[in-house]
Amino acid sequence: MRTLIIVSHPTIETSLNQQFFKEATENLTVTWHHLEKHYPDWTIDRDTELELLKTHDRIIFQFPLYWYSAPAHLKLWEDTVLEHADEFLKGKELGIVVTTGVSEKEYQAGGKEEYTISEFLRPYQRIAHKFEMTFLPPFVMAQFMYQTEEKRWERLVAYQQYLTLVGKPTLIQRINWFIERLSSNHSLQQLDQTKQAFLIDYLENEKEEIEDLTFILQELKEQ
Amino acid sequence: MRTLIIVSHPTIETSLNQQFFKEATENLTVTWHHLEKHYPDWTIDRDTELELLKTHDRIIFQFPLYWYSAPAHLKLWEDTVLEHADEFLKGKELGIVVTTGVSEKEYQAGGKEEYTISEFLRPYQRIAHKFEMTFLPPFVMAQFMYQTEEKRWERLVAYQQYLTLVGKPTLIQRINWFIERLSSNHSLQQLDQTKQAFLIDYLENEKEEIEDLTFILQELKEQ
Repeated sequence: MRTLIIVSHPTIETSLNQQFFKEATENLTVTWHHLEKHYPDWTIDRDTELELLKTHDRIIFQFPLYWYSAPAHLKLWEDTVLEHADEFLKGKELGIVVTTGVSEKEYQAGGKEEYTISEFLRPYQRIAHKFEMTFLPPFVMAQFMYQTEEKRWERLVAYQQYLTLVGKPTLIQRINWFIERLSSNHSLQQLDQTKQAFLIDYLENEKEEIEDLTFILQELKEQ
Repeated sequence: MRTLIIVSHPTIETSLNQQFFKEATENLTVTWHHLEKHYPDWTIDRDTELELLKTHDRIIFQFPLYWYSAPAHLKLWEDTVLEHADEFLKGKELGIVVTTGVSEKEYQAGGKEEYTISEFLRPYQRIAHKFEMTFLPPFVMAQFMYQTEEKRWERLVAYQQYLTLVGKPTLIQRINWFIERLSSNHSLQQLDQTKQAFLIDYLENEKEEIEDLTFILQELKEQ
């Protein structure tokens, strides 16, 4: 599967968020495509974009939530490209990676932001359906920089899985993916000891969760 | 009350819709502000925009629905201006005038467009609430050009009322507004006979509706 990450961020050089994301993609076979960098003069080349859509299977819109929507560059991309994209999108996947400075729990009735992120992202969900694409559950990265290093690492692993794992993966598939990367990837083997310890922790926790679930299932069967 | 209409439409010269709208504003004390015309190079002047917000009480975002949202120019306006607009928006009104080529009934569960226009417009509703503005019910102009001349005329009158009537007007207020305009406005007095006949019809229908309602209320009281 080939993943295209269409990034829209007007001040990406000052975004630690996006720098973490970019680093996390470096050992993956994905295409990082930053719109503001390619089109500083707001003239999006439709043919280039259609060719990119044609040669990828999973399309990701990645952006900071600006006024409950994507920055203007991504909107211009939509207005320029989508009208001609039917044959290049049909049957593929659309994912949204959205960052926000506000805690995710504020996005609900009674919260400071009043509506859910799913509600704000309706236009993208509808675009996916219009092109008969599968809409992946949005990947929300809230207040990334406030989190502990371990938590951040965990989120980046989840981000990598969001970009590369086929379909909507099960827990087992996610663990298999992780073990595979751990054993095959040169740069992961060179991680410092803190990170290695964290990785092992992570895997063991996941395994325990599976064992618990298996136990519960057996209990239920025996009843 | 002073109304600012922030229009976003990249090809406005070919939009009959918007030409009708523009003509309908000509005898009103409103400001027509077309973003693509003022900022063809995508450099929005924040100070000009803040001054406009400062000197108006009702702010209207007017646009064709492009991919379930406003065109990119309006999004750039939001991204540029809103961060600094707090003191100029608080307590004012935000209205949305949206045109669509798809019939309004398709915007519902089970319809071709799947979600309601209210759902797609959540980001604007949230912006209104964030600035402690009153969010006016969106004015939706669907398939305007397919309608009969009389229906179009009726919609343009409703549009004028949306721009200029204070708050969320009652039926009586709308009729009063209409009669006032009819008697005071020179260009309306010069309408051709078909339109005059239509206006009289319109008023009489509204009056009948009120009479019916009054009758029902009296019935209820007597029970």
